[in-house]
Amino acid sequence: MASVPRDKPSFHMDPEEFRKHGHDVVDWIADYYQRIESFPVLSRVKPGDVRASLPAEAPRGGEPFERILQDFDKLILPGVTHWQSPNFFAYFPSNASGASILGDLLSSGLGVQGMLWATSPACTELETLMLDWLARALGLPEKFLSTSKGGGVIQDTASSATLCALLAAREQATSFESNRAGMQQKLCAYTSTQGHSATEKAIGVAGIGRDFLRLIEVDETFAMNAAALARAMQQDRESGLIPFFVCATSGTTSSNAIDPLREIGPACQEFGAWLHVDSAMSGTAALCPQFRHINDGLEYADSYCFNPHKWMFTNFDCDCFYVADRKLLIQTLSVLPEYLRNQASESGAVIDYRDWQIPLGRRFRSLKLWFVLRYYGIEGLQFHIREHVRIAQQFASWVSDDARFELAAPVPLNLVCFYLKSGDEANERLLEALNRSGDLYLTHTRLNGRFTLRMCVGQTNTTERHVERAWRRIQEEASRL
Amino acid sequence: MASVPRDKPSFHMDPEEFRKHGHDVVDWIADYYQRIESFPVLSRVKPGDVRASLPAEAPRGGEPFERILQDFDKLILPGVTHWQSPNFFAYFPSNASGASILGDLLSSGLGVQGMLWATSPACTELETLMLDWLARALGLPEKFLSTSKGGGVIQDTASSATLCALLAAREQATSFESNRAGMQQKLCAYTSTQGHSATEKAIGVAGIGRDFLRLIEVDETFAMNAAALARAMQQDRESGLIPFFVCATSGTTSSNAIDPLREIGPACQEFGAWLHVDSAMSGTAALCPQFRHINDGLEYADSYCFNPHKWMFTNFDCDCFYVADRKLLIQTLSVLPEYLRNQASESGAVIDYRDWQIPLGRRFRSLKLWFVLRYYGIEGLQFHIREHVRIAQQFASWVSDDARFELAAPVPLNLVCFYLKSGDEANERLLEALNRSGDLYLTHTRLNGRFTLRMCVGQTNTTERHVERAWRRIQEEASRL
Repeated sequence: MASVPRDKPSFHMDPEEFRKHGHDVVDWIADYYQRIESFPVLSRVKPGDVRASLPAEAPRGGEPFERILQDFDKLILPGVTHWQSPNFFAYFPSNASGASILGDLLSSGLGVQGMLWATSPACTELETLMLDWLARALGLPEKFLSTSKGGGVIQDTASSATLCALLAAREQATSFESNRAGMQQKLCAYTSTQGHSATEKAIGVAGIGRDFLRLIEVDETFAMNAAALARAMQQDRESGLIPFFVCATSGTTSSNAIDPLREIGPACQEFGAWLHVDSAMSGTAALCPQFRHINDGLEYADSYCFNPHKWMFTNFDCDCFYVADRKLLIQTLSVLPEYLRNQASESGAVIDYRDWQIPLGRRFRSLKLWFVLRYYGIEGLQFHIREHVRIAQQFASWVSDDARFELAAPVPLNLVCFYLKSGDEANERLLEALNRSGDLYLTHTRLNGRFTLRMCVGQTNTTERHVERAWRRIQEEASRL
Repeated sequence: MASVPRDKPSFHMDPEEFRKHGHDVVDWIADYYQRIESFPVLSRVKPGDVRASLPAEAPRGGEPFERILQDFDKLILPGVTHWQSPNFFAYFPSNASGASILGDLLSSGLGVQGMLWATSPACTELETLMLDWLARALGLPEKFLSTSKGGGVIQDTASSATLCALLAAREQATSFESNRAGMQQKLCAYTSTQGHSATEKAIGVAGIGRDFLRLIEVDETFAMNAAALARAMQQDRESGLIPFFVCATSGTTSSNAIDPLREIGPACQEFGAWLHVDSAMSGTAALCPQFRHINDGLEYADSYCFNPHKWMFTNFDCDCFYVADRKLLIQTLSVLPEYLRNQASESGAVIDYRDWQIPLGRRFRSLKLWFVLRYYGIEGLQFHIREHVRIAQQFASWVSDDARFELAAPVPLNLVCFYLKSGDEANERLLEALNRSGDLYLTHTRLNGRFTLRMCVGQTNTTERHVERAWRRIQEEASRL
């Protein structure tokens, strides 16, 4: 048996060692943010490089913390794509902030489980309150507040929120039989051709079948055509299927299209379908009254989600998922083994969030939200959201003014879709040249069949200067083609 | 529009502020671990207390970080149950360590997404390697290594791992039709009466129906009766159902029973059922050769999981999930929208972990595993696991020696189930008195219908002294009844 290190009672890092190494790690992160623009945004390693630089087996004996941190810097960092770089414009942002990182650090330090109210009351109560704070700050309908019949919960991602919403809808549509007896009825779900792939994944997981997901055509702004939705539901009903779930999107991944909830809502009501609204990135914009129109018609929704871990300076994972009727969600996801029974739960006076999600365990994620909301205040968040939208709009105007380029979609907020008029191949080469340069990172989509570049402005430290430089680089590379 | 704070270009915390506040948070955590035994382990707040101490709405303006940290200490801490206290013996542990917390802090600081290899190659490659390191260190069958046809992935929890395993099994059992066409066949799953509730949740989610989960009787050690399993599968088959999934447990939540994989495995093979082995807490013990027998027969398994976030000093969330055939899992969970297409994925040379899980996004969780494995080394981990088992066994011997008490189940590792012989009510009162005292925290289960106390020894800083004191307190309260 290995003996403990000579001068210590155990192999653990004691509090004084933690203090020292913790300061070093905090310093590493502070320094990283100071030098972050010096790295190529997109990692340049090739498949297998990182693994090849590391031993094939775990060490037998422990190693000094300093050496691990050095190796992290030397071996891991080159394999990292710098999502926190202000020159990161790819996908959707996954932005973080000091306040959030430190709130999350406290969550790691406390190491509590929030599966039940009883396992750490503050973990549950702060979460419920933060979701209420956000519902009010976003101007969400009253029914999503915990003080009404609904309420909010933190999920890891919008994909999981979509799955939970779809499951609750499935239960409702089957008179609460599907969980118990399995899928027997033929249900049908709907999202637009531009909706997120999470719905396709969820309907497969739920045993309904991907064949029963209808992708509804979109209008010229890439928003769902509500009349086409109603027609599809009618047709399915006539074929003996049950339209049960619609996932509308307020800000699609592809081009940030805003589905018309005010038209989709009544169609859902007519057919008795659950309306889930996915506003994963764009939802944060509703903090600003001038962008709140993206939620027009949200009063029709049965559930809603947005991700502070995308555009609200809160590090992953943090998806805020709201339901209008919490009983439906709880009834869908609740199981109660003896070893989880406790007085508080049985009193009915508390929320047990394990019944609001797929996993059982859960960490204290509301701490980082609390830190962000207090450190920035609503006005601080509004300021930065407005700035991102302003500079994205500026970028769009530059694109419009350059005769070689064309905007591929409307720009309601912070995502600009555009292409060179000279065809797909030129755009693919442009994208590759830009990303290879390391100066910035963009990704693509296809709109109306065209290979389209996406420029999403949402990184915490992205300012006008970064977007100006990105545009200059895009113009340079376009000229070089 | 709010203007930015007078002396700053933005509302963000800049790197120098982060350095300062970060040091304060690290110090808070170091101090917390020094004073952790001074708190009542189980929080004493009543439902609604924490919420009532906080404002009903988010602040308009930002607040100084110091004030938020003070409020955390003053308002949140009393609502926390101290899972990291060495006097926490409830549920299963969710233990953390300095190395893990700091590895996780770096993950928050980098803020990368690992959904695709391309979105941060190191995030994927380190994860694959860490899962291989662990498979070797635990002595898992070759087939679970990424260098064979299988491989491992980090899930949030064992519940999610069970769901993913069950979905892959469902696909396989339906000739890869269930994802596409929905559930049509009648499938049947099996776990023991002592198996985790995650299987019940998963089979409901998957659209198969909880009615089609059979809870197999257990033997006198609370381990699954393999003959009863085979009989149940035979009976279901004769009724026209398809036995497709068995969740065996190596260390049940209730009493740490070890299901006989060597007998269950052949039965699964005979009926063509997928064998998933859930070793959420106990799996860590296999790091020590003398406890590796808990995995006897694991070569029959199609999938396996254990949670470093339970008993391997790695803070939540970190469940290691292995499959013997990664193609089946990927085929089950893959969806591919245009905006995620990239050259590396299409080359087939890389792993994209979004196809191994329900969510799309994922954080860099392997960093904390890497830090733990290197900081402790395998020998350091073995030392502490052995110590926990040793002192749990000692506790069990004290229980045996006290005529008022009785052991309720065998004690293969670190969980001791016991009760006062004087009946359920006495045990309930004993549990309540102990937990109310704040000196320690235990939870209960029911075994053979009896209300049974559970003493689980697995907290990072739990030593002999804490367990001795716990036993003294249990004896004192028992005398007082």
